[in-house]
Amino acid sequence: MNWELTENGFNSEKIAHLGNKFLTGNGYMGIRGTLDEFDSRDLVAVNLAGIYDQVGNSWREPLNAPNGFYSYLIVDGNVLKVQDNAPKEHFIKLDYRHGIFKRHTEWTTKRGNIVLESERFVSMDDVHIGVEKYKITADFHADINFLTGIDGDVWDINGPHYDEIIMDEDDCISIVGISHEKKYHVAVSVSEDENFPCEKKIILKKEDKKIIKSLNFVSDINKCYEIHRFMAIYTSKDCENPLDNAKETAINIRNKGYYELHDEHCKCWESIWSNSEVEIEGDDDAMEALNYSCYHLNSISPRHTDSLSIAARGLSGQTYKGAVFWDTEMFILDFLLMTNPKVARNVMKYRIDTLDGAKEKAKSYGYDGAFYAWESQEGGYDACSDYNVTDVFTKRPMRTYFKDKQIHISAAIVYGIGRYIDLTGDMTILSEGGAETIIECAKFYYDLLLKKVSGGYYELHDVIGPDEYHERVNNNGYTNRMAKYTFEQAVKVIDSIDELNEQYAIKLCKEYNLKQLKEKFEMAERNIYIPQPNENGIIPQFDGYFDLEDVSVNTVRSRLLDSKEYWGGANGVAAHTQVIKQADVVTWLTMFPDDVSDEIKLKNWQYYEPRTEHGSSLSACMYALLACKCGMKEKAYPLFMKSASADLNEGGKEWAGLVYIGGTHPAAEGGAYMVAIKGFAGIYFEDGKIKAKPDLPKAWKKMRFHICYRNKKYKIEIEDNNANIVEI
Amino acid sequence: MNWELTENGFNSEKIAHLGNKFLTGNGYMGIRGTLDEFDSRDLVAVNLAGIYDQVGNSWREPLNAPNGFYSYLIVDGNVLKVQDNAPKEHFIKLDYRHGIFKRHTEWTTKRGNIVLESERFVSMDDVHIGVEKYKITADFHADINFLTGIDGDVWDINGPHYDEIIMDEDDCISIVGISHEKKYHVAVSVSEDENFPCEKKIILKKEDKKIIKSLNFVSDINKCYEIHRFMAIYTSKDCENPLDNAKETAINIRNKGYYELHDEHCKCWESIWSNSEVEIEGDDDAMEALNYSCYHLNSISPRHTDSLSIAARGLSGQTYKGAVFWDTEMFILDFLLMTNPKVARNVMKYRIDTLDGAKEKAKSYGYDGAFYAWESQEGGYDACSDYNVTDVFTKRPMRTYFKDKQIHISAAIVYGIGRYIDLTGDMTILSEGGAETIIECAKFYYDLLLKKVSGGYYELHDVIGPDEYHERVNNNGYTNRMAKYTFEQAVKVIDSIDELNEQYAIKLCKEYNLKQLKEKFEMAERNIYIPQPNENGIIPQFDGYFDLEDVSVNTVRSRLLDSKEYWGGANGVAAHTQVIKQADVVTWLTMFPDDVSDEIKLKNWQYYEPRTEHGSSLSACMYALLACKCGMKEKAYPLFMKSASADLNEGGKEWAGLVYIGGTHPAAEGGAYMVAIKGFAGIYFEDGKIKAKPDLPKAWKKMRFHICYRNKKYKIEIEDNNANIVEI
Repeated sequence: MNWELTENGFNSEKIAHLGNKFLTGNGYMGIRGTLDEFDSRDLVAVNLAGIYDQVGNSWREPLNAPNGFYSYLIVDGNVLKVQDNAPKEHFIKLDYRHGIFKRHTEWTTKRGNIVLESERFVSMDDVHIGVEKYKITADFHADINFLTGIDGDVWDINGPHYDEIIMDEDDCISIVGISHEKKYHVAVSVSEDENFPCEKKIILKKEDKKIIKSLNFVSDINKCYEIHRFMAIYTSKDCENPLDNAKETAINIRNKGYYELHDEHCKCWESIWSNSEVEIEGDDDAMEALNYSCYHLNSISPRHTDSLSIAARGLSGQTYKGAVFWDTEMFILDFLLMTNPKVARNVMKYRIDTLDGAKEKAKSYGYDGAFYAWESQEGGYDACSDYNVTDVFTKRPMRTYFKDKQIHISAAIVYGIGRYIDLTGDMTILSEGGAETIIECAKFYYDLLLKKVSGGYYELHDVIGPDEYHERVNNNGYTNRMAKYTFEQAVKVIDSIDELNEQYAIKLCKEYNLKQLKEKFEMAERNIYIPQPNENGIIPQFDGYFDLEDVSVNTVRSRLLDSKEYWGGANGVAAHTQVIKQADVVTWLTMFPDDVSDEIKLKNWQYYEPRTEHGSSLSACMYALLACKCGMKEKAYPLFMKSASADLNEGGKEWAGLVYIGGTHPAAEGGAYMVAIKGFAGIYFEDGKIKAKPDLPKAWKKMRFHICYRNKKYKIEIEDNNANIVEI
Repeated sequence: MNWELTENGFNSEKIAHLGNKFLTGNGYMGIRGTLDEFDSRDLVAVNLAGIYDQVGNSWREPLNAPNGFYSYLIVDGNVLKVQDNAPKEHFIKLDYRHGIFKRHTEWTTKRGNIVLESERFVSMDDVHIGVEKYKITADFHADINFLTGIDGDVWDINGPHYDEIIMDEDDCISIVGISHEKKYHVAVSVSEDENFPCEKKIILKKEDKKIIKSLNFVSDINKCYEIHRFMAIYTSKDCENPLDNAKETAINIRNKGYYELHDEHCKCWESIWSNSEVEIEGDDDAMEALNYSCYHLNSISPRHTDSLSIAARGLSGQTYKGAVFWDTEMFILDFLLMTNPKVARNVMKYRIDTLDGAKEKAKSYGYDGAFYAWESQEGGYDACSDYNVTDVFTKRPMRTYFKDKQIHISAAIVYGIGRYIDLTGDMTILSEGGAETIIECAKFYYDLLLKKVSGGYYELHDVIGPDEYHERVNNNGYTNRMAKYTFEQAVKVIDSIDELNEQYAIKLCKEYNLKQLKEKFEMAERNIYIPQPNENGIIPQFDGYFDLEDVSVNTVRSRLLDSKEYWGGANGVAAHTQVIKQADVVTWLTMFPDDVSDEIKLKNWQYYEPRTEHGSSLSACMYALLACKCGMKEKAYPLFMKSASADLNEGGKEWAGLVYIGGTHPAAEGGAYMVAIKGFAGIYFEDGKIKAKPDLPKAWKKMRFHICYRNKKYKIEIEDNNANIVEI
């Protein structure tokens, strides 16, 4: 495979899509695949991880930094921007082996042709820096004016977030944006190195928040003029004086020069790929889609800190509030655990470190324990609002219950910690707060348990499961099963108190009556109601599910009066039918395949799949995984490809009314990885060993990949459905 | 007071309203106050009690009988109907002392003036009959054609209900309608007696389901021609051959003649008034409105059977499906108990006899015990649908939860039986199924009780209280309090098993483990959670009520985008505010005034009243009653008048889109009676005695009325807030 995407020609309608598809990032920042001359109207974003701002009553969202890669050409007095001046030839490329974005554009002017080429990357070696190389070549004596600088007019969904923009010029140019809510400083400095025959450089401070250098010269015929630009970004979350740091860095890296930085960057990527590349012989499409998915996951993995998670739309912008959803634990974590356990630790540590936020959230509802944020931002603050959807008919905000009823989120955290320990063998995370996290999550579910006075099981009422189209249901099977798992994990933790750090163990013993808690959790684990298959082998998704209208997804779709109306909510078209948004029972059976026989798994897959809209990018991979477990790789394959291609293909939901909701789909990408490795390659872990029951798609002749497991690295080769697992 | 309503002039827009206001009825049938020449388009109805029919998937609704009072005049070839031919003079009157409807209309024709007068009543003496007297006088030699017959083209909301219409002519004319669903026969026969100088009578069987006699003669100048018409109605619920019975009766009563029938009828009414008239000296408006309310209640009280209840819209038509709501037990029963205990017994017997329906309903939801119908028809069938409201924006049916979540209905039945026994002293009703009813209702609530596994009270979740604007709430105070009452009553019944009929007691002992049930119910009664006043003395209507937006009724109203949109439901304008539809906590405190101090009652009245839309005619009287208990008769008075005038005044909700939802308001009428007797007159019952704490409105110099209590009748006079209670 050539590890390269190419998009030929310019089409303004594709700006949003390509911004995601050609994204480059390093876990600290993500830069959308937009062109040098683009501005906020074209959804340019230098999206920063883990730093948020709120303006007024709008959603709190992550900050975009001023764009240090802003540049455009004026030739013979004509502005050459692709939007306004159609190029003769134009393409962009993404080298997704190394996260390098390239553009090539040729314009024809009255006097001749001029070519602009550039390539840029944000460094994997030093997450604060990004560099870009431009080349300008004209086949005539062009009067060239190259304008290049920093654009502080940042694209915001709910901004503007910078109350103040400070410009600075020195050996480099800089912009500092001061954020509204917490007065964060976000400093961007850019230095440059060029071979332009300019007489002077003029610095323009423009009213529209741009600081720009104007470089003017007349070109020789067919001579290539080159400029390298060196950008550094620091915020007040990184250091005390972000501007100083940014300036210093921008100067320093200029001294290193483009090519050395480029080499260091590529080395890092090669090291990353040595763990995460998946080779598939016989199916280039699948191999490319899968590795492209891994590229995105690698681009957004937080390596630079020890406690940060991954947002649901990665670093592709402010969509979904830059918040962390259950996506991380349920869909992305496996990729991290198998390819980069250190990052897996970071994302789980983020949850442990936001336990206080989760306890506060629980308390605000009158609950005990920890109720994790549905949309988690700094400190575990839940960015999810009570009114998440706008009624298309009345334009009124519609009360939704994602925040208050989707209680399965806390169990996802416990599941994440559990899997982290299982795959890494690293118990230290428990002593760093993990044990408390698990206990508090169990306390949360315990407090919610209801029991009929007349007797019976313990039940969980008035919840939303993964399928959000059915609100306020009782005994959602997935939720109850996850609560049961949480109780089990809490009991395990209490049982293993002696293995924890002593100081921490003493703290826990002081804080909790562990004996009593253990008894309660054991009772809860034994008595919680787990919906059972009916006479046809089908598990009801929740109480009364089978009483709902049994109708096809297409019939439900045909009832829409407005293509944008919400399927869920109390009155949505799906709400009173058996049509569901995404895998729910199937997610449960995928996670806990031993709960039922293979026959029951198959029956449930067959029942629920045609009733699933797959309205979430989280759905296809769960169906694919269970299909693999049921021996239906041919059913799994298209779902796998759908999941792996979530960001390759156009056509995802990008706009909700006037609000941009597009972006990359890390959960689908992580899901695709899971299907490849755990589904087709059949990798599983048992008795401290990696095992495999491969069942590759027909076309897949060979599969080769590496896996980290319990502090060791393994090379795995699969051929003829035999797995060769070698420690390296 | 003159016991007469008059409406002068004809206005087609008032047809619906006057049809209710001038209704006459006898508990078996109700005839709307429409004119002789009106037909189904003018909402003519001869509404029958307790006989229902369903067509297709539409609501099941009570049958309207063919209209035996259909008549109109043709003079000199011109049809004289008020709608088409504007009268010179026109008025209608209602003698509501005796339930006699009168009309007087004078038309001017080219050759002179002609007057049509009629009066009609449905007999209180024999509920199957109705008679009408017509007088025709012209001041010229008019060529009169009087067309009179039976109109089988019946007004239906969800009909047509008669698959077949059979016409019959003999000594009288008849129509039999055969209903769609259960093939009920509804037979109407009419005979007549007249002094018209007709040469012949022609019988026309018209295609539009009318059988008509055409009586033709030329009138003498100023001579009054009179015709008496004798109608009889029987259905197959009354007898085997309804047509035979109707014909025979129509002939027989003609032999008696109009005046004898009239006298017998009036005697019955006088007897009724001897129990139910309320005299108020000093406030004619109040006295008239109150007695007019009593008139309606008397007109719809089922005296002709021993097991029938009263529909929410009385006998004014098919609105609200002719179904029995909690209105009967909570708002009407007190009037019946104090003025006609026999009818009170009938309505409670109806509930006891529909226990099987209630048990079936409970079973259909997987509950134990008896869950009474929210909209009860024959056999306790719940006519309430899951989709009761149409979304005005999408025109889609909207899922409502009146039927499945308004569990307080069963307690209303128990409350009714309890009050019946308390006020009549008649324990026999327990042995006729009342005991079982109470036990089954208690079993129902017991089965619904939830308890947190972590401990605490018994709770009732996911209900709707009287305030229907807030759906699916937990621990609605009213509901929990009524459940507690139900448990108490059930324990009482079990304790008094020895006082029941021996056979019945044995049956109960066989059917139930009474000892165990008693223990359970005692536990439940002790442990059920009853919301307590907060630091401001206000009782939350349900869990989390105070967290809702606290905003005025007018603000909520101002948010309506469409005047017809529903305030409740998941997304209604009131749903997420503290604005409520009707008395809820206030209903509880009215019913159980000893639960809290007078100060708390007052505080709750003051808190909830301004937050109440009074969107139901059941609201004002509860607020008035509690205002009386709080010593605020001046606040109670306008609410009392609102309640008493519910059917006098125009302006009630009459149409929901294209569906007529108007009709009479028996619950408001019963509520007005409660306010007068239990509020202002301060009547209460203690230690087997009638007692009074009167606090009359200022203008009320004296109040005089009778009350039945424990098989005795009392005359009560109140003056200067002293009550003189004398057994008579």
